[in-house]
Amino acid sequence: MTVRFGLLGAGRIGKVHAKAVASNPDAVLVAVADAFVSAAEDLAAPYGAEVRSIEHIETSKDIDAVVICTPTDTHADLIERFARAGKAIFCEKPIDLDVKRVRECLKVAKDADATLMVGFNRRFDPHFAAVRKAIDEGAIGEVEMVTIISRDPGAPPVDYIKRSGGIFRDMTIHDFDMARFLLGEEPVRVSANAAVLVDKAIGQAGDFDSVSVILQTASGKQAIISNSRRATYGYDQRIEVHGSKGMVAAENQRPVSIELANATGYTRPPLHDFFMTRYTEAYANEIAAFIDAMTKGKKAEPSGADGLAALVLADAAVKSVKEGRAIEL
Amino acid sequence: MTVRFGLLGAGRIGKVHAKAVASNPDAVLVAVADAFVSAAEDLAAPYGAEVRSIEHIETSKDIDAVVICTPTDTHADLIERFARAGKAIFCEKPIDLDVKRVRECLKVAKDADATLMVGFNRRFDPHFAAVRKAIDEGAIGEVEMVTIISRDPGAPPVDYIKRSGGIFRDMTIHDFDMARFLLGEEPVRVSANAAVLVDKAIGQAGDFDSVSVILQTASGKQAIISNSRRATYGYDQRIEVHGSKGMVAAENQRPVSIELANATGYTRPPLHDFFMTRYTEAYANEIAAFIDAMTKGKKAEPSGADGLAALVLADAAVKSVKEGRAIEL
Amino acid sequence: MTVRFGLLGAGRIGKVHAKAVASNPDAVLVAVADAFVSAAEDLAAPYGAEVRSIEHIETSKDIDAVVICTPTDTHADLIERFARAGKAIFCEKPIDLDVKRVRECLKVAKDADATLMVGFNRRFDPHFAAVRKAIDEGAIGEVEMVTIISRDPGAPPVDYIKRSGGIFRDMTIHDFDMARFLLGEEPVRVSANAAVLVDKAIGQAGDFDSVSVILQTASGKQAIISNSRRATYGYDQRIEVHGSKGMVAAENQRPVSIELANATGYTRPPLHDFFMTRYTEAYANEIAAFIDAMTKGKKAEPSGADGLAALVLADAAVKSVKEGRAIEL
Amino acid sequence: MTVRFGLLGAGRIGKVHAKAVASNPDAVLVAVADAFVSAAEDLAAPYGAEVRSIEHIETSKDIDAVVICTPTDTHADLIERFARAGKAIFCEKPIDLDVKRVRECLKVAKDADATLMVGFNRRFDPHFAAVRKAIDEGAIGEVEMVTIISRDPGAPPVDYIKRSGGIFRDMTIHDFDMARFLLGEEPVRVSANAAVLVDKAIGQAGDFDSVSVILQTASGKQAIISNSRRATYGYDQRIEVHGSKGMVAAENQRPVSIELANATGYTRPPLHDFFMTRYTEAYANEIAAFIDAMTKGKKAEPSGADGLAALVLADAAVKSVKEGRAIEL
Repeated sequence: MTVRFGLLGAGRIGKVHAKAVASNPDAVLVAVADAFVSAAEDLAAPYGAEVRSIEHIETSKDIDAVVICTPTDTHADLIERFARAGKAIFCEKPIDLDVKRVRECLKVAKDADATLMVGFNRRFDPHFAAVRKAIDEGAIGEVEMVTIISRDPGAPPVDYIKRSGGIFRDMTIHDFDMARFLLGEEPVRVSANAAVLVDKAIGQAGDFDSVSVILQTASGKQAIISNSRRATYGYDQRIEVHGSKGMVAAENQRPVSIELANATGYTRPPLHDFFMTRYTEAYANEIAAFIDAMTKGKKAEPSGADGLAALVLADAAVKSVKEGRAIEL
Repeated sequence: MTVRFGLLGAGRIGKVHAKAVASNPDAVLVAVADAFVSAAEDLAAPYGAEVRSIEHIETSKDIDAVVICTPTDTHADLIERFARAGKAIFCEKPIDLDVKRVRECLKVAKDADATLMVGFNRRFDPHFAAVRKAIDEGAIGEVEMVTIISRDPGAPPVDYIKRSGGIFRDMTIHDFDMARFLLGEEPVRVSANAAVLVDKAIGQAGDFDSVSVILQTASGKQAIISNSRRATYGYDQRIEVHGSKGMVAAENQRPVSIELANATGYTRPPLHDFFMTRYTEAYANEIAAFIDAMTKGKKAEPSGADGLAALVLADAAVKSVKEGRAIEL
Repeated sequence: MTVRFGLLGAGRIGKVHAKAVASNPDAVLVAVADAFVSAAEDLAAPYGAEVRSIEHIETSKDIDAVVICTPTDTHADLIERFARAGKAIFCEKPIDLDVKRVRECLKVAKDADATLMVGFNRRFDPHFAAVRKAIDEGAIGEVEMVTIISRDPGAPPVDYIKRSGGIFRDMTIHDFDMARFLLGEEPVRVSANAAVLVDKAIGQAGDFDSVSVILQTASGKQAIISNSRRATYGYDQRIEVHGSKGMVAAENQRPVSIELANATGYTRPPLHDFFMTRYTEAYANEIAAFIDAMTKGKKAEPSGADGLAALVLADAAVKSVKEGRAIEL
Repeated sequence: MTVRFGLLGAGRIGKVHAKAVASNPDAVLVAVADAFVSAAEDLAAPYGAEVRSIEHIETSKDIDAVVICTPTDTHADLIERFARAGKAIFCEKPIDLDVKRVRECLKVAKDADATLMVGFNRRFDPHFAAVRKAIDEGAIGEVEMVTIISRDPGAPPVDYIKRSGGIFRDMTIHDFDMARFLLGEEPVRVSANAAVLVDKAIGQAGDFDSVSVILQTASGKQAIISNSRRATYGYDQRIEVHGSKGMVAAENQRPVSIELANATGYTRPPLHDFFMTRYTEAYANEIAAFIDAMTKGKKAEPSGADGLAALVLADAAVKSVKEGRAIEL
C-alpha cells in the first residue's frame, strides 16, 4: 500500500518532510498547502504534487495522511480538524505551547481514533536509536545516569525566540523527550538553572540561552541536560547512558571525516552546522516509522502523549528556575 | 538541461547507478537494457523508465548518455559503439583487462570526440575528496608518502575471481587509481608482493588474495598499498598522505557511531560491510560529476586515460610478482 | 635548595606521596611517622628515611616540610601544630569535614604565616592542567558551561563510607574544586540531586552513590557534575569546558592504547582502574608545585581557602538534596 | 638479589639507561665510564655512582652487568671483552654495522656463555607489547599483514647520518625487528624503495630519508614499513597487525590528551617530539627484562641473534634498492 500525503506548510521543515515523503518507496506526495501559494508551488513542482488549500486537503479522498509543518499556534487546531477528517497525522513538535490546549487536542484525536505521531526526530537518528537498542538488549544493565549535551551552532533571531515559548519549550524539549526515551522511567523531579551568556537580546526578550537541568525518576535514575544556543564547532549533539553494567554513548557527527596533522596538532573538521544535515537520516526514518504505523499496525511513536510529557517537563523547568527549587511532578 | 540516460546492464552495480541517476535533479532515467529482460523490467519500473534493447538505445534520440554496467568483456565494444552513436559514456571500470584493447577503444572514443568517464567511484567519496582538496590547498606541503589500506570484508566467489583478471586488475586497480589521484605524479616503478593467505581455492584459480605494492614516482614520492580479500571487522578503506608540512588521512566509515564501554573495554561497531553502503555518496557524486562534464563543460574525470593508467600499473604489479623485481614503466 | 620532608601517615596515600617526594630532585624524605611503627619502617626503609614520632618531627631541625596523610579527623590538629612549629605543610584533602573547624584551623595557619597547600591532586594532572592553560590563553573565549563526569570503578567499603562525610564531601569535593578551578568565578548557587543506585548498604549508611549537581556563578556560568560510585569500564574522569569561542576537553586515560577489531567491532582496553595509576603524574607534579611554593616563592595552590571553598559547596549540596531546593551561597 | 651495574658511555642514551637502572628496585648503578671523565662524573653523581675506567669496570668484582652505550664502532669489542670478563651485557643496537663482525662477536659471547641482550626498546613499549600479547592469545587468528609506519620528527645532522650506516641500518632496523617480533616467521624476501625527499644533504651523503619496504615470509605473510626522516606532527610510531580473525593496532602517543574545538575543527596536540619521552616506559621495562633474564632465568630477548637478523634485513634492503629487485634470504 502506498500512503498518499498532504503537506501543510512549505517552509524550511516542510521541505525536509517533503523530501522524506517523496524518497520513501511506500509514499507519494499528493498535495502541498501553504498560506503563500508560490511557496507551495515551488515545493510541490519537483515532486509532481498539486497545490491545494488546507480545506481542500481536508476533504480530499486521495489523501491518507498529513504532515503538519505550519506555525506552532496552528498545530492543535489542524490536528483536531484532520483527526475529525479521518486522516493520519504527523505533526511537527510542539502540539501547542500550552499544556491545557495540548490535553484538549489529544482528547479530540483520541475520540476520533486518529493515528497521531509527533516529530521528535532525534529518536530516529541511527546513532541515538542504536543507543536505545543497546539499552533494550541489556548491554549496560540497569540505566542509572543519562547525560545529554545539546548545543546549537548559533542562536536563532530574537523574533523567533519571542514566539518560541522559551528555550525549555523550544530547544530543551528535544532533550526532555530524549531523556524519557532513554531513562525508561518517568522523571518525577526537575531542577533547572538558566542564564543569558550568549546574547543579551535573548535576555531582554525574557528568555535564556544557556541552561542546565537535572531530571530524576522515582527510583533515583538521573538525567543531566546541558544546552547552549552557541557552539563555534558545529551542532553538538551527544547522549550517553551509564548503567549498572556499562555505558553507551553516541558520538557527534561530521560531514567529512578526515584528520589533518601538522605542527599545531591533529585536526578534524567541525561538526554538521545545522540540524537538517545532521538529522537527514532521522527525518527519513521518522516518516518511514509513521508509514509503518499506518500500514503495518505498528504503534505511532512518539505519540501525542509523548509530546505532552515533554512539554510538562519544560513547564516544570521554567517553574524551577523561577522558584529556585526542584519541582516535583 | 536535464540529461536523459540509458542504462546498460541491470545487475548489482546497475542498480546503484540507476538510483544515482534517478535521484539527481538534473537527470532522468529513460531506458534500461539487459540480456535478461525481466531484470531490466524490474529495474526500470520503479523509475518509470522503459526497457529497450542496446541497439534501440544506440539509436534513441531521447537518450543523451549511457551508463555501461554490463560484464567487463563487453565494455570496450560498447564504448566504441556509443561513442560512434554520439552518446556521452560513463563506463564502470575496467574498460578492458587487456591494455592493447583499451588503447584501441580509447582511440575510437577520441576520434568520435566522445565524453567518456570511467567509474573509479572512490575519487568521489566525500572523505577521500576532502583529502585531495587538502593537498591541493597546500595543507601538507609537498606530497611524499601515500599509504592505502584496502581490505574487502570477504573474498568473492572463485567463479568471479576466475573472470576478474586477478586481484591487481580487479581490486588493487582502485588503489592504483587512488595513488595516482593523490601522488600528483605518475608512478614510474612498481614493486609488488603477493600471496594466498585467505582461501586456497583462490590460489588454485591462479590468483592471490593478499598483496603489498610500492609505487614510486620519478621524483621519489612513494605509495604503499596493502590489500586483503578478508577483513572480519568490515570494509576497511583508509588513505593517508604524508607531506613536507603535515599529514592528512581519511578515517574509516561505519554505519552506526556509538561506543559501548564495559569491563571488556570500549567498543565501537564494525565498519560498513559492503562497498555499496560504504560508497553511497560517492556513487551519487560520481554521476553528478559526469552530468557536470556534459552540461557545464567540466572535464570528464577520471577519464579513459586514467582507466588505462591504472591498468598499466596492475599489469606491472603482475609482472613484478612473477619476475621478483621492480618494474620500471 | 633541597627541601627536607617528614611524612605523617604511612598508608596508601602516604606511599604515593613518599614516592613523589623521593623522586623529586629538589626533595629528600628524611622521616616517616605512623601510629603503626612497622608501617612507618616499611615505607621509610627503601628511601633511606628514618622513623620518627610526630612529636619528634615537630621539633626536628632537619625537617622543612611535612606531608599529612593521616586519618581525616587528625588533619586540622596537625596543620595547627606544624604551622606553629614553622614547617611548610602539604595536607591531603580534606582539612576537616566541619566547616567551622576548617575556618579555625586556617586562622591558626594564617597567624603562623605557614605555607599550606591542600591535596587536590587533579589540578596537577597534565591533561586537566592543559585544559586550564587553554582557558587562560583565551582559546575558548569566555567560559560558559563546565561539564565534569567523575565515576569510581567501584564503591568503597561501607565502613569507609561511614567515616567519609558522605559522597559530596568525599568524592564530589574533587569535582567542586575542579569546577572552581575551571569556572574562574565562585559558584553562588548549588542544586543537587542524589540517589542510591549502586549499593543499598550505602543508602543504609545514610549516604548516596549516584549524584548530579549544578553550580552557577553570579554571572550565570554553570558547571554540571555527574558522579557515580560505579563504572565497569574503569576510572572515568572527564572534564569539558564550553566557552564563547570554543570548547576544550580532557580525554580519559588508559594504561594501554591498542585497538582490536573483529566481527564484534573495534575495542580499546578499559581505563585505568584506580586513582593511583590514573594520577601518577599528578601526584608528582603536586609535590613539585609545593616545593616550588617553598623555594621559588610561588603561591601555594590549592590553598587552605580552596579546601574550605570546596567543603562549603559540598555542604550546600547536602542541604540542597535535603531541602529540595537550590542553595544560595 | 640486587644487580650491580656498570654503565659504559655517558651520552644521551646512557642517561636514559642510567635512570632506568637507578629507578629499578632490583638494580643499583655502581659505576659509570666515559672517555670524557666530566661527562661520567655528571651522570654518576646524582645516583651516587663512581666514575671508573672501562678497564676497571671489566675487573670490578662488585659489578654484575654492563650497559653499553658507547659509539657503535666500539660495541662488538666491548661485548667480547665483557663476555670474557663474565659480565652480563646489555648493548644498545646495533652490535656492529658489519654482519661478519656481528657473527664473530656473537660467537665469542656464546663461547663465554654470556647473557647478552640487544636494545630494541620498542618491544617493551606497553602498547606494542600489548599488540604482541593479543596476537599470542589468538585474538586476531593467524597473522597475515603487518603495517609499520615510523617517522622521525626531524632528520638528524648529516654528520650523524654519515656514521649511521644509512637509514636502513640506523632507523628501519627498529622496524625490521618489530616486523620479526610481530610476524612470528622469518622474512625470506625483501623489496625496498628509497628516495631523498626531506633533505638533499642526506642524499649527498649517500643516504636516503624516505623509504618503503615489503618483507615476505615463506608462508606469504607480509610486512610493510614506511619510514620518513620528517614528521611535522611529532614522533609517528604506529604498528598494525591484520590476521585471519581480526586486526590489532597500537595508537600513537601524545604527552597531553586534550581536544580543543572551535570553528576550525577539533584539534588534539601533536605527538611526543622525541624517542626519549615517547619510549620512557619502554626503556624502564627493557632494563627490567634484562634484570629478569639475569635473576629469574628468563630468556635474554631480544638476543644477539635478533640483532643480527635485523641487520641482515637492513643489508638486504640496501641491496634491493641498489639492484632494483627483491632480495631472497
